[in-house]
Amino acid sequence: MEKYMKRALQLAKLGVGHTNPNPLVGAVIVKDGRIIGEGYHEYYGGPHAEVNALKNAKEDVSGATLYVTLEPCCHHGKTPPCVDAVIKSGIKNVFIAMEDPNELVAGKGIKKLKEAGLNVYTGLLKDEAEKLNEVFIKYITSREPYVILKSAMTIDGKISTFTGDSKWITNEKSREHVHKVRGSVMAIMAGINTVIKDNPHLTVRLQGYKNPLRVIVDSHGRIPLDANVIIDKSAKTLIATTDMMPHDKVKALKDLGVDVVTIEKKDNKVHLKKLIHTLGKKGIDSILIEGGGTLNYSALKEGIVDKVMFYIALKIIGGSNSLTPVEGDGIALIKDAIMVEKIDIKKFDDDILIEGYIKK
Amino acid sequence: MEKYMKRALQLAKLGVGHTNPNPLVGAVIVKDGRIIGEGYHEYYGGPHAEVNALKNAKEDVSGATLYVTLEPCCHHGKTPPCVDAVIKSGIKNVFIAMEDPNELVAGKGIKKLKEAGLNVYTGLLKDEAEKLNEVFIKYITSREPYVILKSAMTIDGKISTFTGDSKWITNEKSREHVHKVRGSVMAIMAGINTVIKDNPHLTVRLQGYKNPLRVIVDSHGRIPLDANVIIDKSAKTLIATTDMMPHDKVKALKDLGVDVVTIEKKDNKVHLKKLIHTLGKKGIDSILIEGGGTLNYSALKEGIVDKVMFYIALKIIGGSNSLTPVEGDGIALIKDAIMVEKIDIKKFDDDILIEGYIKK
Repeated sequence: MEKYMKRALQLAKLGVGHTNPNPLVGAVIVKDGRIIGEGYHEYYGGPHAEVNALKNAKEDVSGATLYVTLEPCCHHGKTPPCVDAVIKSGIKNVFIAMEDPNELVAGKGIKKLKEAGLNVYTGLLKDEAEKLNEVFIKYITSREPYVILKSAMTIDGKISTFTGDSKWITNEKSREHVHKVRGSVMAIMAGINTVIKDNPHLTVRLQGYKNPLRVIVDSHGRIPLDANVIIDKSAKTLIATTDMMPHDKVKALKDLGVDVVTIEKKDNKVHLKKLIHTLGKKGIDSILIEGGGTLNYSALKEGIVDKVMFYIALKIIGGSNSLTPVEGDGIALIKDAIMVEKIDIKKFDDDILIEGYIKK
Repeated sequence: MEKYMKRALQLAKLGVGHTNPNPLVGAVIVKDGRIIGEGYHEYYGGPHAEVNALKNAKEDVSGATLYVTLEPCCHHGKTPPCVDAVIKSGIKNVFIAMEDPNELVAGKGIKKLKEAGLNVYTGLLKDEAEKLNEVFIKYITSREPYVILKSAMTIDGKISTFTGDSKWITNEKSREHVHKVRGSVMAIMAGINTVIKDNPHLTVRLQGYKNPLRVIVDSHGRIPLDANVIIDKSAKTLIATTDMMPHDKVKALKDLGVDVVTIEKKDNKVHLKKLIHTLGKKGIDSILIEGGGTLNYSALKEGIVDKVMFYIALKIIGGSNSLTPVEGDGIALIKDAIMVEKIDIKKFDDDILIEGYIKK
């Protein structure tokens, strides 16, 4: 049974970057020990995984078993309720990896299936399903985006030499992986220092992925009007600023088709918690922070970060004036450090990726 | 056959910290598929592994097979040649993991065994044997000590907060592992800044290990006479300085039983390459550098480091004024970075150890 749910999880992943802010879901229909139908949630607003699996079934599904990574919906949203389709199809058994995390609906789909006489089993590969939909789970329960902080550093903890050189610390495989992560989120966030220093495009240079919204945190309105994030129109840009940005700069940016959002201040900077909240209201379910040390520290200190990804290259550059991944004022005592847990280590040739979750 | 050589390697490791500057060697005697004798090189100047295995054999070894991790010696050193003992014992087959790396003797032991009619096979688990004796291999071929650089840092690359707090970044298991590494080398090296700031003892707080020599790099003679490395007599201390140390300070230190060695200057600091050379001449085969960022950078820049060990705690402290594992001037361009290769990743509960070799 586990192998069918694994297959369903695999299918779910095919939707990465296209279903947000809706979940990734995969479904497999099994009869007499053979897979007779497969489907997944392919894009936002499109048919759900169960419906696709039923549609793709190569033979009669009556009496068959459905494996689905998320509890089937029982409400009319962008599509009719999946529960009805499943019941109508004649499927007899349903394995569900995880319940719908939305407290208002959780369990109702399962209840309806059971009432219709189907055998329902929940919890198969639940951890994997929850990890797959960590973004959706946070967003649907809090309406705040899931925030990932990414940094690429040398093994001695530097993100740039004292001369400002940072191209490239990590290798091609690591950078390609970063692009995949970019392609999986709805927004990329960078600080104004990074824009001024590196003038990045912050787009996804891989086929099959959409460009996320670029969010530039620019408290004073220092962004040059010819920055790549302004003139490269392959992705949208939002400038998060404060009332300290001059009015004519706001107007100039808006004239260039850039969204400018004024956020409350905290310590004379954009109040990041409020910004995250605002972005959540705009339907942004996930943000990848690719900032320098200053933005990274503010984000961590403010407690908005859910997950960290440190790409580590086997290089040493030293330098007391080199830049490091997290700077700002810093924490005074080790006992008050921000803790990372549940880490996973991946290797990209010689590079190492350590990813983990911020202990809340 | 591999399992017997593995056992021999295991036995060899029991000598860690006690055989320097001689090698770690293990030996196993096998007859009719049973191990009938085991031995290892237990301490410097003591009987060799082969001789111990023969001595410990529970039955007649004639016709048996010997597995030994290093080519048996054929010269009179502190003990008579092992080759003669092996030949005399009636052993018929000899598996040798690696040749003696000393160019002057390499292969002679093997040749003598073959001439006596024994079957000799070399190269079984050679890589493992070479890793086990990486210190010995360097020292016997260059007469320079093998240098390991160790640092304990947060995942954002800090070794101390901006207030100077560093106790403890890593967990107990990591720190115990550091003590084992200390116990395996002949000298620990620290910079004067570390001594002034942390006042460490630099001793091994584990049973069964000897305290290595403490080498303090103190170019100007700033060491306080009541520093723990001076007054704690459980380990010997050598102060590596330059002609910039005042004569009365030299005398005061010597009166306290501390060895003071004056080394040539480079950039107004102790010339580390010359220091290493001097320590090699004194019979020191291995050094663990536990410096701060300044000494670490100098050591790496001078090219004296063979191996690095970064203990990484899953903590984030940030801070543009926090200290980092490698500081100094730093390298200007990423393309000129010092490269680390052949890494190995270990976990100590939540801590991660990344160890690797400096690409020469």
